[in-house]
Amino acid sequence: MNYKMILYIMGQIFKVVGLFMLLPILVGFIYNENHVVTSFGIPFLALMTIAILLTIKKPKNNSVFSMEGFVSVAASWIGVSAIGALPFVISGEIPDYPSALFETVSGFTTTGATILSDIEGMSRACLFWRSFTHWLGGMGILMFVLAIMSSNDSRTMHMMRAECAGPNVGRLVSKSSFSARILYGIYISLTVLEIILLLCGGMPLYDSIIHACSSAGTGGFSIYSASIGHYNSLYIEMVIAVFIILFGVNFNLYYYLIIRKFSLAFKNEEVRVYFGIIIAATAVITLNITSLYESAGAALRHSFFMVASTITSTGFATADITQWPVFSQTLLLLLMFVGSCAGSTGGGMKVSRILILFKTGVKELKYIANPRAVATVKMDGKPVEKTVVRGAASYFILFMLIMAISLLLISLDNYTIEESASAVITCMNNIGFGVGRFGPNGGFSDVSAFSKIVLSFDMLIGRLEIYPLIMLFSVKKSSV
Amino acid sequence: MNYKMILYIMGQIFKVVGLFMLLPILVGFIYNENHVVTSFGIPFLALMTIAILLTIKKPKNNSVFSMEGFVSVAASWIGVSAIGALPFVISGEIPDYPSALFETVSGFTTTGATILSDIEGMSRACLFWRSFTHWLGGMGILMFVLAIMSSNDSRTMHMMRAECAGPNVGRLVSKSSFSARILYGIYISLTVLEIILLLCGGMPLYDSIIHACSSAGTGGFSIYSASIGHYNSLYIEMVIAVFIILFGVNFNLYYYLIIRKFSLAFKNEEVRVYFGIIIAATAVITLNITSLYESAGAALRHSFFMVASTITSTGFATADITQWPVFSQTLLLLLMFVGSCAGSTGGGMKVSRILILFKTGVKELKYIANPRAVATVKMDGKPVEKTVVRGAASYFILFMLIMAISLLLISLDNYTIEESASAVITCMNNIGFGVGRFGPNGGFSDVSAFSKIVLSFDMLIGRLEIYPLIMLFSVKKSSV
Repeated sequence: MNYKMILYIMGQIFKVVGLFMLLPILVGFIYNENHVVTSFGIPFLALMTIAILLTIKKPKNNSVFSMEGFVSVAASWIGVSAIGALPFVISGEIPDYPSALFETVSGFTTTGATILSDIEGMSRACLFWRSFTHWLGGMGILMFVLAIMSSNDSRTMHMMRAECAGPNVGRLVSKSSFSARILYGIYISLTVLEIILLLCGGMPLYDSIIHACSSAGTGGFSIYSASIGHYNSLYIEMVIAVFIILFGVNFNLYYYLIIRKFSLAFKNEEVRVYFGIIIAATAVITLNITSLYESAGAALRHSFFMVASTITSTGFATADITQWPVFSQTLLLLLMFVGSCAGSTGGGMKVSRILILFKTGVKELKYIANPRAVATVKMDGKPVEKTVVRGAASYFILFMLIMAISLLLISLDNYTIEESASAVITCMNNIGFGVGRFGPNGGFSDVSAFSKIVLSFDMLIGRLEIYPLIMLFSVKKSSV
Repeated sequence: MNYKMILYIMGQIFKVVGLFMLLPILVGFIYNENHVVTSFGIPFLALMTIAILLTIKKPKNNSVFSMEGFVSVAASWIGVSAIGALPFVISGEIPDYPSALFETVSGFTTTGATILSDIEGMSRACLFWRSFTHWLGGMGILMFVLAIMSSNDSRTMHMMRAECAGPNVGRLVSKSSFSARILYGIYISLTVLEIILLLCGGMPLYDSIIHACSSAGTGGFSIYSASIGHYNSLYIEMVIAVFIILFGVNFNLYYYLIIRKFSLAFKNEEVRVYFGIIIAATAVITLNITSLYESAGAALRHSFFMVASTITSTGFATADITQWPVFSQTLLLLLMFVGSCAGSTGGGMKVSRILILFKTGVKELKYIANPRAVATVKMDGKPVEKTVVRGAASYFILFMLIMAISLLLISLDNYTIEESASAVITCMNNIGFGVGRFGPNGGFSDVSAFSKIVLSFDMLIGRLEIYPLIMLFSVKKSSV
């Protein structure tokens, strides 16, 4: 294990996040919030000092393999969350550290679960930082570093692989740093476009930036307790719903569209299934809830928004789903597991993984019926490599195992099994709301400090897709 | 597909089950319940007539492969349940057919979930039949037919494979019918031993037979609403707890003990893990519930019994677990998923499958850390075949998928998600009780007819381990 290189990469990431901390200071100056000088200044200095110490000397041996990639990503995310939580504590807006850590991890992992009960009472600088962590975590902190670093060797691939969501990462171009730049280019363009469209709908600039950041990361932090329901505007809801769906699409597809390889874009099986699920779920839920609303149109509007918010694991809300029939609630719960596309900013298991698993199950049935038949799992018409199939199956198994252990730990808090389960599910899938106590309007403020740490870990497990964190905590054993 | 042979096998099974229907008639005569002549006589005649028609001519082509094995097992179980439900309807003790079907499927699949609210009001003949279905379903109906048939070809293996629980079936001896006879010999001996030990504890003969049958199949039907708690006897509780644990052990182990191959018996990894889980879970739950009882001894007593009842998926109860801390409830819920050993009468995912899945997950972690490392999954010190690993993973995936669909269908009844989930989990794992409305003392009587059918299907899916039923319903497609 090349520890020096891991620390060097961490230093680079800390530097970038440190510089981004200047943004909330700027916001504070604009809105005359003087506390920002200390509450963001101290963490800024802390990050920059550590970053400079770690990057003062570039290691001679700069080899980076899988293990180094996974460990540096996991360690960086934990470090950035630990320091990123400080502004909330120093400003006194979230005085206890476990709560601030939970909120920050929830931000970076784009979960959107909150411990805040009085969102409207927060300073604008803190609220900006909170939503900005969504934007930064959505596409990946390390990915950003890769995009600005002019590294020209293939080792960066191992780091992209560790941070990028989904069963396999399709490198767009041969150079990873160039690939990262394209992805961030698309990401920034879509975010700016959403800000403009929200402004056109009459949303104030500050609100537009906040909600565009939260949409882009498919995070879900809003600045109102009523979330997007606050605006009560069909136009704004539709803009946000469409954009979170777009941010849940595999970004490779946009790249193919840009370079005019339309056939590659449209034959993507995952994206077609993703849209298919959205349409089907919206239709079924609309029928199921139609009697609760004044018109079928209103039912369709809420159904579409909540399906988009759930499958992309955003967690914005326009309706109180706990009032919906249990069938609709159950369907949304299942969509949480499915999640969005690989290589997007959304959470969950990912559509492609579910597809591969489903096809593997069907293949096994064929095999059992006729052991001599050779059945292969195919995606986009091409056979899927065995390692990918095995990886998807193992991921599912580890995911369920970690979920079971977390459920057991959270149950010490003595909530009902349903509530504990919904807390774990919403955190591991990076959604942001569960059922009952943890419904769209409920908060995590009463959860014990121990459970906050467990759930923070679950959010990181969900965002980084298990492997980096396990690697980090098994380093000693593996490096023997 | 050899349809003629499938029908012939079904005929053989119907004949055996028909003859067993004479037992409740005998019970009825002993206790002067005259209704048994019609309520059991009519289904008896129906079964025997169909059986004779189906077996009147042995097909010339008697080849049986995987598909035929799976389809005949699935079709037989459905047929036997459909007709086995008739005595409850004809006697008027369970007037509506979907409820009677649910109760019978729950019996044959050794689930033990009941729709009865007044168990004490039932006739002795019906209660006997209800518990006897546990005994018959536990080791397998087809297995019994194999044990008495003097078939000397290897095709019977395909049928044993379809009915036997667990990731792989270790044939004890080269001849399947002989193998089936050994298994049934052990099964009958253990059942008789339990009857004798219960009699020694002062339990009446009728009660002893009922509870021994329910224990043997790890089913859980009792003849009192308070289940085993009715007797309030430490001796009886311990006898039953120990026996259900023994019935949850892979029966191959007893065979190895009989033929004095002690080394083979004791190096069995699955059985060691199974006992390890029971001891650990009992200890943890005892600590967790100790404040609820007058002494640590009482806590240990209830903890041990409920752990045994849950991991073996029996469903007997001595305590109201809904009053226990959520941590203990959650741990029991997880034990339901784990289940007992492969090749036993218990339900759940099976310890060996969980072990294989866990090891596969660890292997994948090693592979990701170092793609050049070759890691193999081992059980009992020997490498596990790839098809077994893939089978366990596919089984888990299909299990979760069917659970998700069932959850969605049950949610139409508008119970809470927790209650719907617990109903599906308890039925698919063949346990018998869930949480909330479906707790140890709750019943399935209020569930809609539609949900009763769905849950009956889930119980069969759980008992026959998915494949036979899917094969049955995809016959047309596959046989093209």
